[in-house]
Amino acid sequence: MNSFDELIKRMSSGERRALGKIITLMENDSSSSAYIIPQIHNLTGNAHIVGITGPPGSGKSSLVDKLISCYRNDGLKVGVIAIDPTSPFTGGAILGDRIRMKRHYTDKDVFIRSMATRGNLGGLSEATGNTIQALDAFGKDVIIIETVGAGQVEIDIVKVADTVVVVSVPSMGDSVQTLKAGIMEIGDIFAVNKADIEGVEKCIIEIRMMLELSEKKGGWIQPIIKTFGNKDDGANDLYESIKNHHKYLIESGHHEQKRIIRGKTELINILQNLFIRNLYDTISEKEMEELAKKIANREKDPYMIIEELIPRLKKFI
Amino acid sequence: MNSFDELIKRMSSGERRALGKIITLMENDSSSSAYIIPQIHNLTGNAHIVGITGPPGSGKSSLVDKLISCYRNDGLKVGVIAIDPTSPFTGGAILGDRIRMKRHYTDKDVFIRSMATRGNLGGLSEATGNTIQALDAFGKDVIIIETVGAGQVEIDIVKVADTVVVVSVPSMGDSVQTLKAGIMEIGDIFAVNKADIEGVEKCIIEIRMMLELSEKKGGWIQPIIKTFGNKDDGANDLYESIKNHHKYLIESGHHEQKRIIRGKTELINILQNLFIRNLYDTISEKEMEELAKKIANREKDPYMIIEELIPRLKKFI
Repeated sequence: MNSFDELIKRMSSGERRALGKIITLMENDSSSSAYIIPQIHNLTGNAHIVGITGPPGSGKSSLVDKLISCYRNDGLKVGVIAIDPTSPFTGGAILGDRIRMKRHYTDKDVFIRSMATRGNLGGLSEATGNTIQALDAFGKDVIIIETVGAGQVEIDIVKVADTVVVVSVPSMGDSVQTLKAGIMEIGDIFAVNKADIEGVEKCIIEIRMMLELSEKKGGWIQPIIKTFGNKDDGANDLYESIKNHHKYLIESGHHEQKRIIRGKTELINILQNLFIRNLYDTISEKEMEELAKKIANREKDPYMIIEELIPRLKKFI
Repeated sequence: MNSFDELIKRMSSGERRALGKIITLMENDSSSSAYIIPQIHNLTGNAHIVGITGPPGSGKSSLVDKLISCYRNDGLKVGVIAIDPTSPFTGGAILGDRIRMKRHYTDKDVFIRSMATRGNLGGLSEATGNTIQALDAFGKDVIIIETVGAGQVEIDIVKVADTVVVVSVPSMGDSVQTLKAGIMEIGDIFAVNKADIEGVEKCIIEIRMMLELSEKKGGWIQPIIKTFGNKDDGANDLYESIKNHHKYLIESGHHEQKRIIRGKTELINILQNLFIRNLYDTISEKEMEELAKKIANREKDPYMIIEELIPRLKKFI
């Protein structure tokens, strides 16, 4: 038995450290994923995947913290993937945001994993997908993905969730407008957080108006829930809404649909990563630099260079 | 002379409509870019490229509006690329934000272009790069790229700029922390906007502290400029800072370095797009759906499917 099989066995028997190790292996090296995923794929498909997204400062982490408590009160096992737009040199977001979920770190049925957007050469979506698989195989009942909903990659990640919660707060300047622009249409549930500050009713009306303009999501009417940064009221309502949506998905058949979309996203992410890695295997960092210099000096243009590169790339994927 | 040549000729002679048409052509169809870019590449390399980034609600558009006025007062020609996290169904961000730059729309030496992040299947970076080229070839002295600095794609886009301005505002909850996490390290200049509201000094101290922790940018000490949402004070200081940084880049030789990085980014973006398009040429939407269904049903795992797909993909890039 090789060390991968050993790790997978230990993970399947419920060893948290083995789970952590497997996620790290898959994050660092996609050939590990190519070995591990086929072994665990048949254990997956049971978890409810919940995406929580919203602008910086909207209090997503505090909400996630409270949702974890709700799930734990019902005896359910929770995995959390927190996508951090972290820079390697500060590590700020991890220390800052994750501290809010601290009290759950000692609970053996809660597994929290931070993933940085930096240093992931196009690989964030693949890494997230694989981490979902691992947590699912590990027996988590729910997997929460938390992400700042502003970039395309973040939106792509969160939209593979079964249930997407969009968090906003009253009077954050352009925030509702920006929400509307980017992520309104992927929200199944809207949480208006910090609902004890001024402007909450205006915020709700704005969301309601935008929802009326948008395409209907089958038979599901997106609820707008008031939640409160520092109190527990509201978090329970949000929790109930998430459970209702899950029930709706299964009964309506939309659940299956979401799984297919997720499968497609996984395929494309992995292929794209494969391409990038092969590109760097074919063209060395040094040669890439030389070519870039020619573009910078206007000696050649990028399309001309690509014309020359294509025959060499054909050997790969 | 084909219609492309005709358009390029009209653009080169200063016709705005031809410029707009060329940008649209390149956005919609990469084979147009492959024809157009080589024709205009030797006209480029003169514009100063300025990236303006910051969280939603930080007042980036108002600042850009004021910067345009500063440039115009000096008789310089301005291009603006505004990256909108816009959804096709609302179009909200374009209408909302861009209205702030309205007064410049009638100025024939200001060209403002909005680009949506949605519907750009991995092609946003390529489209932005090509639009920069077109504006540069058109004779713009400065090209401003405005983007919400939260996603990886947005960060990738803005970091190709010669000069990157990071905008923050006091007391936006986690905003400074989030800035720190994602985009602090790419900032050449920091603007603290809405500096007439409470918390501005604290915000400046936080930025200063984080800069002290970060890697130095050669001999350039990143200035922190106070700007004001509704007044003109501060915008001039920011303008001067941007010009100083440009001067510094040229004198220090860093300008050349940035151009090489930009060349490299262009190459990779175009290759990646080429790959995705070829992927969709090889595997039909219908077949992709079938494969995704197998993943969803746990019949096969994605890595297994990719193993089978690779021989077919080898025919392409």
